[in-house]
Amino acid sequence: MTVSQIDEEVAKLLKLKAQIGGDEGKHQFTLKTAKGTRDYNPKQMAIRERVFNTIIRCFKRHGAETIDTPVFELKETLTGKYGEDSKLIYDLKDQGGELLSLRYDLTVPFARYLAMNKITNIKRYHIAKVYRRDNPAMTRGRYREFYQCDFDIAGQYDPMIPDAECLKIVHEILSELELGDFRIKVNDRRILDGMFAVCGVPDDKFRTICSTVDKLDKMSWEDVKSEMVNEKGLSEEAADQIGQYVSMQGGMDLAERLLQDAKMSQSKQACAGLTDMKQLFSYLQLFQVTDKVVFDLSLARGLDYYTGVIYEAILTQNCPVNVSATQNGVDEKAEEGVSVGSVAGGGRYDGLVGMFDPKGRKVPCVGVSIGIERVFSIMEQKAEASARKVRTTETQVMVASAQKNLLNERLRLTAELWNAGIKTEVMYKKNPKLLSQLQHCEDSGIPLVAILGEQELKDGVVKLRTVHSREEVRVGPGRVCTIPVKGVASPGTYTR
Amino acid sequence: MTVSQIDEEVAKLLKLKAQIGGDEGKHQFTLKTAKGTRDYNPKQMAIRERVFNTIIRCFKRHGAETIDTPVFELKETLTGKYGEDSKLIYDLKDQGGELLSLRYDLTVPFARYLAMNKITNIKRYHIAKVYRRDNPAMTRGRYREFYQCDFDIAGQYDPMIPDAECLKIVHEILSELELGDFRIKVNDRRILDGMFAVCGVPDDKFRTICSTVDKLDKMSWEDVKSEMVNEKGLSEEAADQIGQYVSMQGGMDLAERLLQDAKMSQSKQACAGLTDMKQLFSYLQLFQVTDKVVFDLSLARGLDYYTGVIYEAILTQNCPVNVSATQNGVDEKAEEGVSVGSVAGGGRYDGLVGMFDPKGRKVPCVGVSIGIERVFSIMEQKAEASARKVRTTETQVMVASAQKNLLNERLRLTAELWNAGIKTEVMYKKNPKLLSQLQHCEDSGIPLVAILGEQELKDGVVKLRTVHSREEVRVGPGRVCTIPVKGVASPGTYTR
Repeated sequence: MTVSQIDEEVAKLLKLKAQIGGDEGKHQFTLKTAKGTRDYNPKQMAIRERVFNTIIRCFKRHGAETIDTPVFELKETLTGKYGEDSKLIYDLKDQGGELLSLRYDLTVPFARYLAMNKITNIKRYHIAKVYRRDNPAMTRGRYREFYQCDFDIAGQYDPMIPDAECLKIVHEILSELELGDFRIKVNDRRILDGMFAVCGVPDDKFRTICSTVDKLDKMSWEDVKSEMVNEKGLSEEAADQIGQYVSMQGGMDLAERLLQDAKMSQSKQACAGLTDMKQLFSYLQLFQVTDKVVFDLSLARGLDYYTGVIYEAILTQNCPVNVSATQNGVDEKAEEGVSVGSVAGGGRYDGLVGMFDPKGRKVPCVGVSIGIERVFSIMEQKAEASARKVRTTETQVMVASAQKNLLNERLRLTAELWNAGIKTEVMYKKNPKLLSQLQHCEDSGIPLVAILGEQELKDGVVKLRTVHSREEVRVGPGRVCTIPVKGVASPGTYTR
Repeated sequence: MTVSQIDEEVAKLLKLKAQIGGDEGKHQFTLKTAKGTRDYNPKQMAIRERVFNTIIRCFKRHGAETIDTPVFELKETLTGKYGEDSKLIYDLKDQGGELLSLRYDLTVPFARYLAMNKITNIKRYHIAKVYRRDNPAMTRGRYREFYQCDFDIAGQYDPMIPDAECLKIVHEILSELELGDFRIKVNDRRILDGMFAVCGVPDDKFRTICSTVDKLDKMSWEDVKSEMVNEKGLSEEAADQIGQYVSMQGGMDLAERLLQDAKMSQSKQACAGLTDMKQLFSYLQLFQVTDKVVFDLSLARGLDYYTGVIYEAILTQNCPVNVSATQNGVDEKAEEGVSVGSVAGGGRYDGLVGMFDPKGRKVPCVGVSIGIERVFSIMEQKAEASARKVRTTETQVMVASAQKNLLNERLRLTAELWNAGIKTEVMYKKNPKLLSQLQHCEDSGIPLVAILGEQELKDGVVKLRTVHSREEVRVGPGRVCTIPVKGVASPGTYTR
């Protein structure tokens, strides 16, 4: 059967299905979001906004611009970029016209954007949702629809300078988010490939052995070795040689040592990678981030398109998210800090843009992606664990009245405050009870109430009450705009 | 064949297709975005950010929270909500599992969210992309993927208070965006239905006649009448009676006059709508927005789910966007200000949430959607027409050197500035020319350059140069953080 015959057959079957009623009526009406997706409620949004602000502030501090791309791309744009994972791409229904797929990451659309607009250098960030038909472990913060926060530097520059800036950015963001201690592992595709070569891995097995090495953060060396030998057909000798290297961790010193290593130094590729690694660490020293960065030969990372430096940041402290996992974990590992998974990752991909350029012109790129969903999960659990409340609005003052029939006066004052740029709420009732107006302030953290009454109207003042202390002052005309708004908590921060 | 047998057969065929290589290699590679979609470049993003900030500031001033929902919903969630326009919904491919569609607006997901979480009152905004397989007129700012900015108030309140706040919000946003003069047309579904009833339109023709009336902003009354009579089979007499009403415009006075109207007052529905309209205008007076609001009986609006007040804001000045259209336009109309189309719209929909609730419990809602894409278009054209440059970064200072071999010193100072929270750039070259460093500042509007040289290093200072005036000062240690950053333009604002 050929592809077009299959397409024909599928079309025929789907037509028949539609005729006999399709999926409709098959199941009851379900009130839910699609599998692997979720709504964000106001509290989650307040936390999300705070995290995004921290990250965007960092990206802007480094002089980045931002771009946006459509949520779907031509299917062919994504084809051949993700290896085995391509099966996780969401396709749109063929409704006549183009074949479209939801974006799988932000890197491929970025490369398409550069090639399409013939841009040869840019420093940009992009924060947007991406889509993967994975089997999601939603309790651990993994979804089919999730955010990526990407920062990339494209352009032909002197080696390792932009690469070092990416690591500096990871360091800044993870420090500012206060997620606990972290470590950034660094390696280089050229060092990995060189290592495979000198250990006797056949060329055509580099990728598959690399993806086995990538499992070392979840599996023991014994299991990884067994997969290499028994499943992937590598010789036991080669596997053992790899085993020696991938246990190595260090800094600039390790790069220097490996440059002297009798076997490793035979590979030109490895030497190039190691020389750059030394250079990278010298810049990281200037950036004062070497305390968290480790040159780790076991770091492999899955994606095909990396060509040079690769890195991954992990949190090393127990976080509420993984409490159950660490409780059943191995004690020995727990002591040196159990990995709660990657919170950032990236690397250099000098060939990707060239795949889109009609003439194959290359634009060297290096970038990093912040694993923001995991950060959200940790932040949410922190907020949950804390007794303090998260504000979801920024309202500064509530216009209230103690007496009946003052709706018009309340609305007039409210409009005056809005016009003066003051964040104001008013109840949509003709005669709300004072207690329910005050209760709303307590519930949503509004710090001030402007209370109107017959007497106040007569005197041309309002009574301004601080919700927390119950202090009251009378404020006269012309002073409305000077309402004290100090101490007003921003959304996403804790009150009380 | 049953549906599940078909599903099985399709799955088998698709698996086979994947094995033999799928769609790959079938067609030539095209470098483009999907039809009706576009990338946003950094300049467009800077403008977008500025517009969003203005709108979000307004929403927050009114005490709104924000939520987010997935980009796709179960297909059945969208079914039966959009009438004829349902054909414009993007469906995802059936890849096994649930049938999904991209959201068509933010209102239906909002109603689904309220019903699913049993929320009976909330004031929320939601800014996100929606999808319609329309034939887009991209030059006029219409796309298949576009943003909506929605603000809605859900809850059982006293009549017309939240409705008035929605109109106040439209007034504030359109004023702050400085798009030129505007008008907000208001009507009520109950007034329209009552009018149709007393004019002798048969019940089953209300919706279709309503959608013809909706075309009055683009078609002459003669053409509208002809469509009613010739295409929709309405009697000429009924059409003429409608014609008399839909030419009426006014304010509270018109509502009062129609309440006395011999024919109109026969309809209970119309009277309820007209009484509320009077109430609405009294609140709008308190909010000081009656200067822009017109009660207009020709306003119909397409969507099925409206049950009460409806409104639509239009710009009344010639804008650069529609220059070509107005040049060929009718002179008579041009003089009273040609409509450049709707920039905001909304209304009351008290039945939508009940459609999702298993027990049909209603949650009254009223809301407004800002037509943000049209606003972007206008803003972009304004920026294009202006000679001034739009900044796309917020960088405050560039660390540069005039001499060679000072990369390490530049990087060290750059890191110091980043750590002090100062937005800083540095060139990724070992030995960049001073001229190209200064040129980059000119190009991207960076106001300050910190210049390092042998002499400065010896003296322990940096030379701080103001790009615009070329003034230079020498800054000593401990004063690095006090770099004057006044007059630094934000992104999206104009420099020079």
